[in-house]
Amino acid sequence: MRVSRLMLATLRDTPADAEIASHQLLARGGFIRRVSSGIYAYMPLMWRVLSKVINIVQKEMDEAGALQTLLPQLHPAELWEKSGRWKGYTAGEGIMFHLKDRQNRELGLGPTHEEVATSIIGEQIRSYKQLPINIYQIQTKFRDEIRPRFGLMRSREFIMKDAYSFHASEYDLQDTYYKMDKAYTNIFISCGIKTVKVDADSGSIGGAASQEFMVTADTGEDLILKSPDGNYAANIEKAISKASPPLTLKKQETIEVSTIDQKSIETLCKEQDIDSSQIVKVIVMVAILEEGKDQPLLISIRGDQEVNEVKLFNEITNELNCKILKLSFIKEEQLINQGLAPFPFGFIGPDFSDSALKNAKTWQNKFLRIIDLTAADLQNFVCGANIENKHRFHVNWSINKYPSKTIDIRKAKAGDLCIHDESQVLEECRGIEVGHIFQLGRKYSTSLKASFTNEEGIEESFWMGCYGIGISRLAQAAVEQNHDEKGIIWPISIAPFEVMISIANIQDPIQAALGEKIYKQLIPQGIEALIDDRNERAGVKFKDADLIGIPWRIVVGRDAPSGKIELIERAKAFNEVLDAKAAIKKLIEEISNQKTF
Amino acid sequence: MRVSRLMLATLRDTPADAEIASHQLLARGGFIRRVSSGIYAYMPLMWRVLSKVINIVQKEMDEAGALQTLLPQLHPAELWEKSGRWKGYTAGEGIMFHLKDRQNRELGLGPTHEEVATSIIGEQIRSYKQLPINIYQIQTKFRDEIRPRFGLMRSREFIMKDAYSFHASEYDLQDTYYKMDKAYTNIFISCGIKTVKVDADSGSIGGAASQEFMVTADTGEDLILKSPDGNYAANIEKAISKASPPLTLKKQETIEVSTIDQKSIETLCKEQDIDSSQIVKVIVMVAILEEGKDQPLLISIRGDQEVNEVKLFNEITNELNCKILKLSFIKEEQLINQGLAPFPFGFIGPDFSDSALKNAKTWQNKFLRIIDLTAADLQNFVCGANIENKHRFHVNWSINKYPSKTIDIRKAKAGDLCIHDESQVLEECRGIEVGHIFQLGRKYSTSLKASFTNEEGIEESFWMGCYGIGISRLAQAAVEQNHDEKGIIWPISIAPFEVMISIANIQDPIQAALGEKIYKQLIPQGIEALIDDRNERAGVKFKDADLIGIPWRIVVGRDAPSGKIELIERAKAFNEVLDAKAAIKKLIEEISNQKTF
Repeated sequence: MRVSRLMLATLRDTPADAEIASHQLLARGGFIRRVSSGIYAYMPLMWRVLSKVINIVQKEMDEAGALQTLLPQLHPAELWEKSGRWKGYTAGEGIMFHLKDRQNRELGLGPTHEEVATSIIGEQIRSYKQLPINIYQIQTKFRDEIRPRFGLMRSREFIMKDAYSFHASEYDLQDTYYKMDKAYTNIFISCGIKTVKVDADSGSIGGAASQEFMVTADTGEDLILKSPDGNYAANIEKAISKASPPLTLKKQETIEVSTIDQKSIETLCKEQDIDSSQIVKVIVMVAILEEGKDQPLLISIRGDQEVNEVKLFNEITNELNCKILKLSFIKEEQLINQGLAPFPFGFIGPDFSDSALKNAKTWQNKFLRIIDLTAADLQNFVCGANIENKHRFHVNWSINKYPSKTIDIRKAKAGDLCIHDESQVLEECRGIEVGHIFQLGRKYSTSLKASFTNEEGIEESFWMGCYGIGISRLAQAAVEQNHDEKGIIWPISIAPFEVMISIANIQDPIQAALGEKIYKQLIPQGIEALIDDRNERAGVKFKDADLIGIPWRIVVGRDAPSGKIELIERAKAFNEVLDAKAAIKKLIEEISNQKTF
Repeated sequence: MRVSRLMLATLRDTPADAEIASHQLLARGGFIRRVSSGIYAYMPLMWRVLSKVINIVQKEMDEAGALQTLLPQLHPAELWEKSGRWKGYTAGEGIMFHLKDRQNRELGLGPTHEEVATSIIGEQIRSYKQLPINIYQIQTKFRDEIRPRFGLMRSREFIMKDAYSFHASEYDLQDTYYKMDKAYTNIFISCGIKTVKVDADSGSIGGAASQEFMVTADTGEDLILKSPDGNYAANIEKAISKASPPLTLKKQETIEVSTIDQKSIETLCKEQDIDSSQIVKVIVMVAILEEGKDQPLLISIRGDQEVNEVKLFNEITNELNCKILKLSFIKEEQLINQGLAPFPFGFIGPDFSDSALKNAKTWQNKFLRIIDLTAADLQNFVCGANIENKHRFHVNWSINKYPSKTIDIRKAKAGDLCIHDESQVLEECRGIEVGHIFQLGRKYSTSLKASFTNEEGIEESFWMGCYGIGISRLAQAAVEQNHDEKGIIWPISIAPFEVMISIANIQDPIQAALGEKIYKQLIPQGIEALIDDRNERAGVKFKDADLIGIPWRIVVGRDAPSGKIELIERAKAFNEVLDAKAAIKKLIEEISNQKTF
């Protein structure tokens, strides 16, 4: 390809809305063009990158036995109503674009395809003999993001590979899940990007196990905790760890202590000269439910620990077995609205009485009581005395007469010890999610009544998995991970071209002829070469070449009369003057090596 | 690929909504699955067909110098307002799906991309040196069809290849237009379908020249007129021809004849014993304009000819140089509403006075007068006398004192003589439009202010072309053109697989082993083989094979012990018992020959 025919249009200035390097470089290099907030056109150079990523993904998915399809982007509302997700995805802060057609029927623009895939497979597949099935598609998806940002990282139109697998048993689902895990690992290696696989929360998609593949990058939106030995990594939302051991008070008789205005853990510790790990902190919240009375929560956790709200949300959802719209901290106004007496905030103990909720208007009149493992392990602790300005010291759990659920709802953090090896201390890093695999279980197949006949002739709901890769996000993440101050450094396997031939002075017939000769020798060898045949200053061409990040460069300049050129590897300081013939030989070898993983 | 892993799900019954053979066969073969009205999922077999079509299209577009991109599907309303198409595409019967995002901004779902492409190129390209540019994309498009039907033929989501070219001159635009014409011809030949290229109306897209590529099929929605010598073909909307010569009255003095109740041409001819080609028929219509007073029209045409409303619409639009919402026949009620006296309908002559429009409330008070060439050529004709129950005989055009536009607005029809060769008589056939190429001119670049600097340093609007191929429609059109009563007969180049190995009895270890052996020998030879390894009756397998239409079939049956199989070509009665080795050799040769065009 010739640069003169490529509509190359690089920018000197960075677009005002581009906050991170990869967004800036893709915009400046003319790879993408903003059409509206969070909506981008993929220009010819970018399309070449995306095609290569897509080819790698297709190859691995096909080899893992998945079947490519293309499902509709317009989804009838009825399907999402069956799964119970229509309201959540469209009302209020819902992220699904939706519209009415000329028949006044509601349609959503697919952000994900569990409903469509499950419905089709449910209609088409009858017997366990046809299972397992794993269908995938590569397609533009839509999300009406609250705050589109970072270019393709959080855009409103983006390219996804999504796959949905259907199984006769959980065991078989796990088998495909591990195959997908392996395929994903291969895909990211083939794309030349470094990823870390982390345990993840399954979020609104639902389901049992799930893992994310993260491109590590300082600008990543996700926080990851991992062990230095590489044996454990998890999204902060899902991470588990062993808390540092608490200091313990000496065993003594329980005493009540006056703690006037010592509402916060910090003040209490300072005034009473105790350590926060000696305290049971109590938090009162209310779970707002989609249907029925809202549920007040009383949460006990060790004073030096924080609650992980995602873990808490999941536990409460499981416990109540109903849909929670949100969790919020109980505030005084709410108590007034409920017709309840004020709570002694800052002085509540784990045994705070349910009588405080008696006569609540729209709340349940009993707390759901959750005790974090760190709190449950304490003895002789400090806690609120359930009246203003009083705490109790040297308390034990015998004070709590109410049924309570003891479970891990603690936020793990850097510095915690690892569960798998207590000699390992968790470290923090940031990542960009590029892949996500889920074991969905039977949530969607049950709600959408998608079933098959099992070996015993009985109708059963499918076991399901789903597996996503953000194709356009991956392409940008590769830039975030591979760039320098001059521009992009594409991994060879997804670079728009493999080598750029820069003719320093196109007016010089000897340079021009040598450049063309090299170009014409590379093409039949299967090397994807780009020749900069523009009548521009050498400096402009070199700057553009650095910016668009083609992995190899051949500069044809002053040494052309002696048949010599300069061979440059973009990623390295590597820079060698060679005879043109030797350069071609070396280039072909190097590229061939780099493309073999 | 093994049929057992392909989720093959054929139907015995035809879906109720499938009216034409190709829709029935694609649905019964499990190629497509309806998700909502006019919205289909492309299942694995169909995706393989579409991929092959896409690969053929990409190859030819790339070779013609076009650059692949991917433009957004969500279009900001502002862009379409600039081109003046937002209202027409969204209001009333507009076919563009549209919605409001969370910021309450209006977005349309792209049915076509002139606005987006023009806006991007206008921002990115500065100089004539960067021209010509031809960008293309392959993408799902959306149309909220009034009546979705015929499966993928007229669906609400469909895959298109669309290209937009930008030029410094009309001459350069024509050059690319002819390159695209050639590329399209190659594409359809490569896909193994027979098409006819026809002159076409450029419709709401606008522009100068345009041609359509039609797959000929009896069920096609478009009517085509073509010459037997293959030198002329046009869409009925655009077709031109030489009308048969009229009979003429003898030259005599003009006389007025009483023609009571002889309002229609038919009655008049019968009662007066004249031929319809001797009459000037006058039609009165009104053009409803987007802005300003509506324009009454007085149209004269030879009595045996019909008006082509598309030609008429285009002529009136040019003449008035403004946007016409629709053309309608003037009715009595309208005259009452306008406060006008009744017209002598059925007795109006070409010289009907403008005074009939005096004092019209919202109409212009002069007719725009159009005379079709067939009428203009008449002498000594018959026409209305402008009063009830009276016609004039032996009239000449000297009667018409009003300024009139003489032009071709006649509907060509089968039986007319060809313009290029009067020995050729037009024939009628039906077609399915699969491709369309346009010379757009500067309509979009002007309205969207997309300009470049020309060689003289002056800003100028781009000359533009656009070029579409209906990828999903093409795939179904191939079926409409290639099927029999048993099922589909895919052209080899777009068939989901090239050969199907049917093992008659999978329980028979000798048959199973021979089938597997052949399968394993074909795969490394690059033959796309499908092996039917299902434990089903041979009859079921053969029926499925006929239905899904793989071009070649190897049946491994009773002759397996002697190493013999049956080789069948789906398209022909061809059916041969061969030694397995000979069959493989022959198959490879035949497929290789069929794939070379």
